[in-house]
Amino acid sequence: MIIGLIGFGKVSQNLFKLIKSEEIKFITSFENRSSKTIENIKKANIEVRDTFKEVAAESDILISATSPKTALGIAEKYGKYAKGIYLDLNNISPKTVLKINSHVESLIDGAIIGKIDSKSPVLYLSGKKADELLFLNEFITAKKISGNVGDAAILKMLRSSYTKTVSALLIESWEIARTHDLEEEFFDTLALTEGSDFKEKSISRIENTLNSSQRKSEELEEIIDCFDENDLTMVKAALEKLNR
Amino acid sequence: MIIGLIGFGKVSQNLFKLIKSEEIKFITSFENRSSKTIENIKKANIEVRDTFKEVAAESDILISATSPKTALGIAEKYGKYAKGIYLDLNNISPKTVLKINSHVESLIDGAIIGKIDSKSPVLYLSGKKADELLFLNEFITAKKISGNVGDAAILKMLRSSYTKTVSALLIESWEIARTHDLEEEFFDTLALTEGSDFKEKSISRIENTLNSSQRKSEELEEIIDCFDENDLTMVKAALEKLNR
Repeated sequence: MIIGLIGFGKVSQNLFKLIKSEEIKFITSFENRSSKTIENIKKANIEVRDTFKEVAAESDILISATSPKTALGIAEKYGKYAKGIYLDLNNISPKTVLKINSHVESLIDGAIIGKIDSKSPVLYLSGKKADELLFLNEFITAKKISGNVGDAAILKMLRSSYTKTVSALLIESWEIARTHDLEEEFFDTLALTEGSDFKEKSISRIENTLNSSQRKSEELEEIIDCFDENDLTMVKAALEKLNR
Repeated sequence: MIIGLIGFGKVSQNLFKLIKSEEIKFITSFENRSSKTIENIKKANIEVRDTFKEVAAESDILISATSPKTALGIAEKYGKYAKGIYLDLNNISPKTVLKINSHVESLIDGAIIGKIDSKSPVLYLSGKKADELLFLNEFITAKKISGNVGDAAILKMLRSSYTKTVSALLIESWEIARTHDLEEEFFDTLALTEGSDFKEKSISRIENTLNSSQRKSEELEEIIDCFDENDLTMVKAALEKLNR
């Protein structure tokens, strides 16, 4: 089996490390790559083709793992050459998944939950041929959601809407706690029901959110746009909170 | 040492069970009590005085554990007879604590976090003489917050504002998940970071909130009134969500 990689960032590098089998060969290309990426590909000792068009045509599974902004362009350019499965692992919206689907024969939409460089990333998959990727369970945890492309992207967004709104709530609670000089006690009393790591996890969420509130706001706007048929009182309040 | 009990509901009954010492005597009264309460007191084999006035005058620690609505009236009626510590364990607002303080010589404001009938309830204490109650650590977990009466009530409200708002968020996320037929996956992906009991805990919170949304709304209104000097975007959204 041949797995082709378009993009050789964190996701591809870690999948390459985790998926070790004599029956699987990885290929990629240096085409239009930065010198740093070329260096990383050389170090990894992956077979290299002249163009991504060749990579796409030769692969049983073509993995697109570049960036949310380039995902659609990659699909438009190389999707038509992919004979096997086209697995999109970019952090894209359900709408973008559907656009990509129009350029690709057998799209599978994948969402990595948890950090890809952790020991146990979980890969959620949706798409008609998602079953065909369950062999990956030999190397990582892979779960099929459904046959509908877009479901993995929706799931990722749903998870993100929860964690980002909790972060906004943590910022608000922490502000009130500070006003009353009860920060430590606030974390202590919640740790009793929310788990012993509540303080550590919460402070990390508060700091992360405050340090990149612009980006978090944009992600919340995308979530609101995506789920606009539902009541979004809480998510909209989170956006308002971050914009303050 | 004599501990006087005004109120013999769940809180008093459990404290009586947990605080077992040859040096501590509990007293209470049948005055104006229901036949059921009198039965419970008889079963517990507590010493009984004719009036709560006598109970108050004789106690080193007088515990008021009746109900939020009657807490202030109890303090107005019996506070002046309490020579020792007056420990209020009713689930009252910081404002009510301050009103009670004007009728009582040595008030300690107590907040029980976690269920009182669990094996390890934690009692948070605030008030000038809070140190004098730390001997209770022999029987339960007792923590002093500060010398300021009202801090325990504020802490309880702060904790409650967080958990109630999370519940409102859970209701919203669950609605979105249902729309996309991704309920199981929603709980699964969050369990990866929020703890393996996420689903069980969340469903219990959703059900609890939906089954008593009127009461939860009233409690949120009280929280908003209490913390009105802070930005309450998230808590106010939770109230709006529950009122829908």
